[in-house]
Amino acid sequence: MGDQSINNDRPAKRQVTTGAVGNSVKTWSSPEGRADIRVPFREVPLSPEANEPPVRIYDTSGPYTDPTATIDVAQGLPALRAPWLARRGLDTVPQARAVRPEDNGFVTGKYGVAPCPAEHVVWRGSEGRPVTQYEFACAGIVTEEMIFAAHRENLGRIEKDPDAAARRADGEDFGADIPEFVTPEFVRSEIAKGRAILPANINHPELEPMVIGRNFLVKINANIGNSAVTSSAEEEIDKLVWAIRWGADTVMDLSTGTNIHNIRDWILRNSPVPIGTVPLYQALEKVGGVAEKLTWEIFRDTLIEQAEQGVDYFTIHAGVRLAHVPLTANRTTGIVSRGGSIMAAWCLAYHRESFLYEHFEDICDICRAYDISFSLGDGLRPGSLADANDAAQFAELETLGELTKIAHAKGCQVMIEGPGHVPMHKIRVNMTRQLDACGEAPFYTLGPLTTDIAPGYDHITSGIGAAMIGWYGCAMLCYVTPKEHLGLPDRADVKTGVITYKIAAHAADLAKGHPAARIHDDAISRARFDFRWEDQFNLALDPDTARSFHDETLPKAAHKTA
Amino acid sequence: MGDQSINNDRPAKRQVTTGAVGNSVKTWSSPEGRADIRVPFREVPLSPEANEPPVRIYDTSGPYTDPTATIDVAQGLPALRAPWLARRGLDTVPQARAVRPEDNGFVTGKYGVAPCPAEHVVWRGSEGRPVTQYEFACAGIVTEEMIFAAHRENLGRIEKDPDAAARRADGEDFGADIPEFVTPEFVRSEIAKGRAILPANINHPELEPMVIGRNFLVKINANIGNSAVTSSAEEEIDKLVWAIRWGADTVMDLSTGTNIHNIRDWILRNSPVPIGTVPLYQALEKVGGVAEKLTWEIFRDTLIEQAEQGVDYFTIHAGVRLAHVPLTANRTTGIVSRGGSIMAAWCLAYHRESFLYEHFEDICDICRAYDISFSLGDGLRPGSLADANDAAQFAELETLGELTKIAHAKGCQVMIEGPGHVPMHKIRVNMTRQLDACGEAPFYTLGPLTTDIAPGYDHITSGIGAAMIGWYGCAMLCYVTPKEHLGLPDRADVKTGVITYKIAAHAADLAKGHPAARIHDDAISRARFDFRWEDQFNLALDPDTARSFHDETLPKAAHKTA
Repeated sequence: MGDQSINNDRPAKRQVTTGAVGNSVKTWSSPEGRADIRVPFREVPLSPEANEPPVRIYDTSGPYTDPTATIDVAQGLPALRAPWLARRGLDTVPQARAVRPEDNGFVTGKYGVAPCPAEHVVWRGSEGRPVTQYEFACAGIVTEEMIFAAHRENLGRIEKDPDAAARRADGEDFGADIPEFVTPEFVRSEIAKGRAILPANINHPELEPMVIGRNFLVKINANIGNSAVTSSAEEEIDKLVWAIRWGADTVMDLSTGTNIHNIRDWILRNSPVPIGTVPLYQALEKVGGVAEKLTWEIFRDTLIEQAEQGVDYFTIHAGVRLAHVPLTANRTTGIVSRGGSIMAAWCLAYHRESFLYEHFEDICDICRAYDISFSLGDGLRPGSLADANDAAQFAELETLGELTKIAHAKGCQVMIEGPGHVPMHKIRVNMTRQLDACGEAPFYTLGPLTTDIAPGYDHITSGIGAAMIGWYGCAMLCYVTPKEHLGLPDRADVKTGVITYKIAAHAADLAKGHPAARIHDDAISRARFDFRWEDQFNLALDPDTARSFHDETLPKAAHKTA
Repeated sequence: MGDQSINNDRPAKRQVTTGAVGNSVKTWSSPEGRADIRVPFREVPLSPEANEPPVRIYDTSGPYTDPTATIDVAQGLPALRAPWLARRGLDTVPQARAVRPEDNGFVTGKYGVAPCPAEHVVWRGSEGRPVTQYEFACAGIVTEEMIFAAHRENLGRIEKDPDAAARRADGEDFGADIPEFVTPEFVRSEIAKGRAILPANINHPELEPMVIGRNFLVKINANIGNSAVTSSAEEEIDKLVWAIRWGADTVMDLSTGTNIHNIRDWILRNSPVPIGTVPLYQALEKVGGVAEKLTWEIFRDTLIEQAEQGVDYFTIHAGVRLAHVPLTANRTTGIVSRGGSIMAAWCLAYHRESFLYEHFEDICDICRAYDISFSLGDGLRPGSLADANDAAQFAELETLGELTKIAHAKGCQVMIEGPGHVPMHKIRVNMTRQLDACGEAPFYTLGPLTTDIAPGYDHITSGIGAAMIGWYGCAMLCYVTPKEHLGLPDRADVKTGVITYKIAAHAADLAKGHPAARIHDDAISRARFDFRWEDQFNLALDPDTARSFHDETLPKAAHKTA
């Protein structure tokens, strides 16, 4: 019946949100012969009159929804990847980079957030041995992470769904290559082809592996960031916990200001999903917010700082080249990406090529050593329909294609960030050009927003574009909340953003003809037609809201079982 | 800025919602040489630093947002069409149908809502003279309604927008025929071709004319219905006023139970937008809710009752034929349309062809006499993705195509209702088949919902589908609120539904390459880029929400002018 304590209120201090989603039951499944690999799912049991098996649902929520788990954020989550990593001949880093005052914004005294006490051994890849999932994949080696992700994509099925072939034939996938059943070998081959990534820093052993690529389920990302005044590490962790509870597949920590090193540590030690960052933001903090003071050395040091902590993917705006900046001169909304503006300001200040572009191979070396995936930033993404698909945007995309090749040659995993604000009829060309320019590397877009006129509702303006680009082949959709353009999202906004994007991603899976996506829809439709209200609520993406909306107008329990 | 009394609270008893939307200014514009035709718009003045003219916005809100208007619901709105109608040689109906007890559900005493005292002369078209907009159009006659609607589509421009040709060339309209500038003659020719309708019952003189067709701006409809216990006529009227305030182009009154005749009268006398109904609902009330007791005579009497009141379009489920019913036997969700279920039950009870189908020509004669547009109902629309685009749905569509021809031959205006629940990749074929089967008669769809798994968020699951089908050519989008499948929408839900559908309709206009749609987006984008917060709020579809969201996190006025 759902935990009544689960609502939009923040949990009490020193706690994070726990408890089942609706009345779903946490369950685990292991691939055949690999009892050491336990893949989490949640299952919705149906009422007896349904005479149907429970419905299994992809589960991003981690141990927080496991009633048997003891959650202690000071200790962090279990390091489930540790035994796998231990067998890979990685080097421990005896002299890990020490935390410096600038890493936490020179915070002192009572405003400081203490470091996370969870134990954390720092690893680094060796030369000559595969480190990244890409290197393993290219060497023909199937990793435990790939096995985990494959089993997860199949929702634990041990063979293809009986309707898989029919569903595939019924879909329209725009040339994708979605299998009827996902094998670990398929995951490997997709990663080796550069068509998928499995973001998993070797210093993030707490991660439950997942795969991002257009031949897999469409994924979603939620952004979180620290509050102006951080009251506690738990409050920051709970933003993560709340986002993954509702379905965020990855989370980007976009915190700025004080305590960000320590908060990031707390987040990583307690995150079962890949964590992404924009290292440029922290580097800028270290130079007092003045773009011109940025140097390669400060940036490099920030990469290593975050790499050792375990960040799984980095947004790197190396595609904003000096020559591209003039292409934005006549735009309606100039450069709206924060990373893009920083780099454009730097390039213009010195009239020099971007240090990110010039040092891209050095960045690759760092990313390879920890298996940090690239999320090549679209610093010149349009900030309005007027600027969609313009010369600046596509010039950068071509550069991202070049960089993709370099990163692959260096053994790194790569995905590509995309817009932004794009009217519906210009969305598809974004997808086709990206696939073409970047050798089918996974695309990861922000929306896109399909109109500019609805501030306060940009989860919807962008959810439309997100569903469409997901259908066309976008691998991951970065959520937009109702507060976009207006302010910082609160807890209700984060949930609304995540649910909206789960809708978009699932609508895309259905349209692509994903072999099993419709099982969930069909189950809820049968429940609806049979007036099994409890089953309908429990199968809803957001059981709490479905139940409460029903209660508002038909409060009597009798109506629910009618 | 903005009337602080405008929020989600209901207005005090005996009042309806009035006041400007944001800080927009009500304005009127007349086509050249026709000072008698005053077309309303709202204009958003921008801050002086913008150095830009006010932005003109299509306005469905009627006199309620005119600060100079005296709103007295007992008197009704001014009968602006009366002088035009007076010149058309219509017959007055000396013995208009008297109200009968069953029309109001046999309500008595204190539960009764009094009749609306507004004066209302009942007209009826004559034989041998054009009555309907379709008949005028076919006779080559441009009516005042067509002139009004054309001027409205152009937002009062007297010549084409300078960017019109470029915008048209930049769009993708899937074979539509959108002009760079809408002339009255173009409206006439679209109506004559059956590609557009101008719903305007001759007994609804209060109407501000508008046109529905794929070569015009995409329109949206909001459904309203009476509450279980009606406290006052004002409360019911305010549902209409609230929906049109946020942009509903037409409103369907789906009330059932007691007082519906009188409430409908109050609504019509106070509605500046076309009102649609499903007469079958009231007919069923008259026979105690038992489908088998329905007869042609009772149905016919209900049509005349509502026709004389001034209903502008009727949903008629004449496409549900006896032979179609077995096609739904193996569906996951059977027949979910209420009208469809009623007619299927009737057909099965007698194993007879539907009386709506058999009497379709008689229905046409009634609709023609008052110029009531047909909205041919899709009684077999899918209620789940599993049933989308099935044999039952398309069999009905073919029948609707047949009926369209008959209705046109009888001089009537026709649009076609469409689904429902459809995954993204199956939306387009709905549009192309409808255009083909129904000779390009305007399509009017409910959503469609692109996934079934998100009760509580079906404005979003359907907003995605609505934007897409609008782009493909759907002329009007029937809104879906967050309460769909769960309960009755409240005031906040209605607003959320309308705003979501305005987003979908506008996104479609943009994608189709509407010659002037992007003016609004570009203005708000410039305001955003210049940090003109007040301009951004005022240009938003929902200025109140945009402003309040900004205030939540950045409460100081200083931030707004930064």
